[in-house]
Amino acid sequence: MTGPEACATFAAVADSQLTEVFSPIRWQGDALELLDQTVLPRRQEWLRCDQPQQVADAIYRLSVRGAPAIGVSAAFGLVLGIDPESSADELKGQFVETRDLLAATRPTAVNLVWALRRGQEVFDRVVGSGADASTVRAALEQWAIAEHRADIEANRRMGEAGATLFERGDRVLTHCNAGALATAGVGTALGVIDASFRAGKVETVWVDETRPLLQGARLTAWELGRLGIPYHVIPDGAAGSLLSRSMVDRIVVGADRIAANGDVANKIGTYTVAVLAERHGVPFYVAAPLSTIDLETPNGEAIPIEERSPDEVTRVFGTQVTPDDAPALNIAFDVTPAELVAGIITEVGVLSPPYGDSISRAFER
Amino acid sequence: MTGPEACATFAAVADSQLTEVFSPIRWQGDALELLDQTVLPRRQEWLRCDQPQQVADAIYRLSVRGAPAIGVSAAFGLVLGIDPESSADELKGQFVETRDLLAATRPTAVNLVWALRRGQEVFDRVVGSGADASTVRAALEQWAIAEHRADIEANRRMGEAGATLFERGDRVLTHCNAGALATAGVGTALGVIDASFRAGKVETVWVDETRPLLQGARLTAWELGRLGIPYHVIPDGAAGSLLSRSMVDRIVVGADRIAANGDVANKIGTYTVAVLAERHGVPFYVAAPLSTIDLETPNGEAIPIEERSPDEVTRVFGTQVTPDDAPALNIAFDVTPAELVAGIITEVGVLSPPYGDSISRAFER
Repeated sequence: MTGPEACATFAAVADSQLTEVFSPIRWQGDALELLDQTVLPRRQEWLRCDQPQQVADAIYRLSVRGAPAIGVSAAFGLVLGIDPESSADELKGQFVETRDLLAATRPTAVNLVWALRRGQEVFDRVVGSGADASTVRAALEQWAIAEHRADIEANRRMGEAGATLFERGDRVLTHCNAGALATAGVGTALGVIDASFRAGKVETVWVDETRPLLQGARLTAWELGRLGIPYHVIPDGAAGSLLSRSMVDRIVVGADRIAANGDVANKIGTYTVAVLAERHGVPFYVAAPLSTIDLETPNGEAIPIEERSPDEVTRVFGTQVTPDDAPALNIAFDVTPAELVAGIITEVGVLSPPYGDSISRAFER
Repeated sequence: MTGPEACATFAAVADSQLTEVFSPIRWQGDALELLDQTVLPRRQEWLRCDQPQQVADAIYRLSVRGAPAIGVSAAFGLVLGIDPESSADELKGQFVETRDLLAATRPTAVNLVWALRRGQEVFDRVVGSGADASTVRAALEQWAIAEHRADIEANRRMGEAGATLFERGDRVLTHCNAGALATAGVGTALGVIDASFRAGKVETVWVDETRPLLQGARLTAWELGRLGIPYHVIPDGAAGSLLSRSMVDRIVVGADRIAANGDVANKIGTYTVAVLAERHGVPFYVAAPLSTIDLETPNGEAIPIEERSPDEVTRVFGTQVTPDDAPALNIAFDVTPAELVAGIITEVGVLSPPYGDSISRAFER
């Protein structure tokens, strides 16, 4: 590795190309290309990362974000960390350095932890068989591509499972972005919304703008527009008003980590939506692959919650919105207790309460 | 009147001057000067309005905002609508034109309705006595100045009454801006917080940024900084997380209209905070002068709710944050049912549930 370097940015691809093969993650054999989500929807720029440090930076800066997309990107980051010219002695240090670099980027999304752990297993097995660096790299690459494909397939299955919960005419509210941009495939929550829309069930989508970083206003709005699904962006504070006016039939969000008891960590503001949903008797669903469920985390209190720079609150697209010296608190995630979740939509079907049992059974299969 | 014209903007006053005589509303005899709240905290600019149309524009554009401040500004707008050279025949048409112009600016804040109605009474009485235009104008001016003073005094009394509810070490959450900028005096909710802070009871304030127009991040933060009260700005979606972590002891907000049964219309997002407060057993208070209570509105459903331009959601300080053609819904207020309100802090003391009774009694006094 050559140390910290910004990913090279290269020209935006044509819009039509994106529609056909849309994924924010492209593996090119010698580099990982990531659609830079910090500048969407104003610009469509791809970052070319051929060093693990560039992948780590992209994850930390939220150029790539969403628990599943972070997991897949980290898998390719491990591949980039192996120099095929290395000696057997150098290999292990190289791998550990890359793994720790990627692990330090973001604490809440458990998919990152899983990806690094499974990558470690692949590495140990192949190195243990006496393979050279080039073979180790090839094995990791094969595994990362399989992870990428598995996420796409999990998204498709979640969509199918989730659509069974929807009814014709549903007005659906979602928070943050759990679409193609947050995954390798069509998305978790947005995959469910898309499948339900294609089944003729979704009338419109209310998109929480999701301050501070506006993933709803920027990314979910952009994706829904591309999918041709009717929507309106609303300020986060407006969800309560819409629910009290009976303008919401169903809520579906993604997750960054789900504890073994079904408590859900997701983007700040999610818990508020769940509390409002309970008051108004509107079902609140979480869509996430099994890789987002962490059996080693017993409950929500045990989930590490990332705190990010106050600048993300005090500035919007570089413009200071508060007084210059205003202090701000920027907690990136909150925890929704399992009791507020009507169902967890996974690639093996919809899990129902009590989640301790249904989650255990899903993993036993 | 010379028709729609922008208020003349003139140089910002020195900071020290503002601190001494701080009010966003200054009457100069021939003009109303308003601190332009659309450009705060980045610039301190005063608008000079010598025509009613300029006052109406300032109210509509939110250069002056907050139910009490709107009421006082409208009172001075009525004064500016009287040409002291007019004949007796012209007077009535002049007054009606000004009154209707001001009435059409914003639908939710009832203080505006009250101010125009009381102004009408003054006008009818003085005109009925056969006075000339100059005398009518002088009578309206005297009345408007009295309204201004009464609001300042009401703020002071609300502060005193509210501070009795607070306890040492309180961490207080507020939404939107109900401070000096929203009133003629020290503010409603912020007046209560200030009085409680001066009584040694407030440890810190959590300031909901209050999208879409960021009155919390821009205005409440600016006021708390000037008052020397510790605070942090948070995204609106973070209030739930702070409440679930037991980081909030008390909530106090202002109001734009309170119905006869105690239902409260206030800035969008307020209802959400009240629902969260109930779940976590944290008292949710509303601070408002009696002029914000509308006995003719039986309940929240009867309160007209303003819907504003989607541009306020899709743009932040002029920067587009959504895709270019993204639709957005911008409901400016929501209604918090009386059952979620622990107390209404007024200039005649703290009203308790059931509000139908306590409100009636307050008006009988």
